[in-house]
Amino acid sequence: MSKEQMLYEGKAKKVYVTNDPNLYIVEYKDDATAFNGEKKGTITGKGQLNNAISKIFMEMLNERGIPTHFVEQLNDREQLVKKVEIILLEVVVRNIAAGSLAKRLGMAEGTVLPKTVVEFYYKNDDLGDPLINDSHIDVLELATPETVKLLEQYGRQINDILVEYLKSRNVTLVDFKLEFGITPQGDVILADEISPDTCRFWDADTKEKLDKDRFRRDMGNVEEAYQEMLRRLGGVEA
Amino acid sequence: MSKEQMLYEGKAKKVYVTNDPNLYIVEYKDDATAFNGEKKGTITGKGQLNNAISKIFMEMLNERGIPTHFVEQLNDREQLVKKVEIILLEVVVRNIAAGSLAKRLGMAEGTVLPKTVVEFYYKNDDLGDPLINDSHIDVLELATPETVKLLEQYGRQINDILVEYLKSRNVTLVDFKLEFGITPQGDVILADEISPDTCRFWDADTKEKLDKDRFRRDMGNVEEAYQEMLRRLGGVEA
Ligand SMILES: Nc1ncnc2c1ncn2[C@@H]1O[C@H](COP(=O)(O)OP(=O)(O)OP(=O)(O)O)[C@@H](O)[C@H]1O
Ligand SMILES: Nc1ncnc2c1ncn2[C@@H]1O[C@H](COP(=O)(O)OP(=O)(O)OP(=O)(O)O)[C@@H](O)[C@H]1O
Ligand SMILES: [Mg+2]
Ligand SMILES: [Mg+2]
Repeated sequence: MSKEQMLYEGKAKKVYVTNDPNLYIVEYKDDATAFNGEKKGTITGKGQLNNAISKIFMEMLNERGIPTHFVEQLNDREQLVKKVEIILLEVVVRNIAAGSLAKRLGMAEGTVLPKTVVEFYYKNDDLGDPLINDSHIDVLELATPETVKLLEQYGRQINDILVEYLKSRNVTLVDFKLEFGITPQGDVILADEISPDTCRFWDADTKEKLDKDRFRRDMGNVEEAYQEMLRRLGGVEA
Repeated sequence: MSKEQMLYEGKAKKVYVTNDPNLYIVEYKDDATAFNGEKKGTITGKGQLNNAISKIFMEMLNERGIPTHFVEQLNDREQLVKKVEIILLEVVVRNIAAGSLAKRLGMAEGTVLPKTVVEFYYKNDDLGDPLINDSHIDVLELATPETVKLLEQYGRQINDILVEYLKSRNVTLVDFKLEFGITPQGDVILADEISPDTCRFWDADTKEKLDKDRFRRDMGNVEEAYQEMLRRLGGVEA
């Protein structure tokens, strides 16, 4: 496997072409952004931590029948993944009101939702990743109605798996964001990452935040929170 | 039928109790607001015009099998309607990109949508009437999934009827907002109003705006536009 030219550099990761037309290499960076890129910073060691954390979640989901892009970890910052065309939808699943949902619905942060909320956001930085509904997805041709149904199904299934898995590690899964893509073979698989950058994790007892909200809200001990998450997942930095 | 105490005063209408427990009187005001109440003004004659225009639309829809709250016009500013408990959802149906949709999806105003868009907004002034999806509606218990389906169905049916009706009057129906309510008997019926306050009407040839956007955007000739709409609908002020 040889790493070739960089395909694109995002806010948190770089994606490289390889000599295998079906595979990419993803490199995790320490850069952190929030509020649609308005707030920028660095979290020392985040690249290694998220690489390790996302590997654990993706492997676990793979084992439980969710198709993901994860192939193998290459080194402390890089992993080999299946190449996909990213579907321009962020699938957000929520168990507890926080962040934009708390604001949108006027609920106190921390309110346990009586039902799981699934949201679709249009992955479009210029528009600020707006919330959209099925008829918007249809008009923008972001996905077929069948794919939208599948994404919601996967989102709920992944939520069930993660909630249970994290509970046994004394972590409450508040909400998380997923990205899916389509392989050259036409399969819809989970892509991107699952990490404290893309989830809200709270200590189940103290409700201490173990995720990017510590960065967003200048709470300090950001790196320590990511390390603590990796520790609870039983992982080690490569 | 006797008019009794005022039940509530909104931005555009007052609602009165009557001596019939199933009926309310709605009084149309000249007050106009926009941008969630930030912009305030008066449009001379709007009360009479919207009373007359909404009557025409509601009677027409009634005739075509859509259950509405409209019973009869009482005088130039008042109409008798069936009392409902308003469902706290604004149902917005769109044929052409304009206003918040154009912004949300990054489309030029005037783009003909390849498919009809139906949106639900949470009727909540404090929250700025946010766009919400089915799982939000479920969590807030604003309506059952069956009612949501019915509202979308009614929205699309009403759109089909209005588009055709207005086309023959040389008016393009860009988009509109509906409110529904539940009668004491448990039926879901169309309530509120259908008027230039709640629809975007464009002259089919010139694309001249014949609706509240003239007020929102300080375009002048607001009253004249409402009068022109009434004229095209073949109506007269009571
Ligand atoms: N398996 C994959 N194949 C192709 N692209 C992928 C894959 N997994 C993730 N990506 C994409 O890699 C890009 C870089 O990731 P990063 O998280 O840094 O992006 P970002 O700055 O958050 O930008 P975006 O708003 O596009 O997500 C993202 O666009 C992401 O969707
Ligand atoms: N048949 C009806 N029975 C009961 N209430 C009704 C009926 N038709 C309309 N209403 C309600 O009458 C109120 C007054 O109307 P108006 O348009 O002035 O309100 P508004 O200022 O727009 O406020 P809102 O945000 O509540 O719509 C609204 O709350 C509307 O939902
Ligand atoms: Mg990203
Ligand atoms: Mg109103």
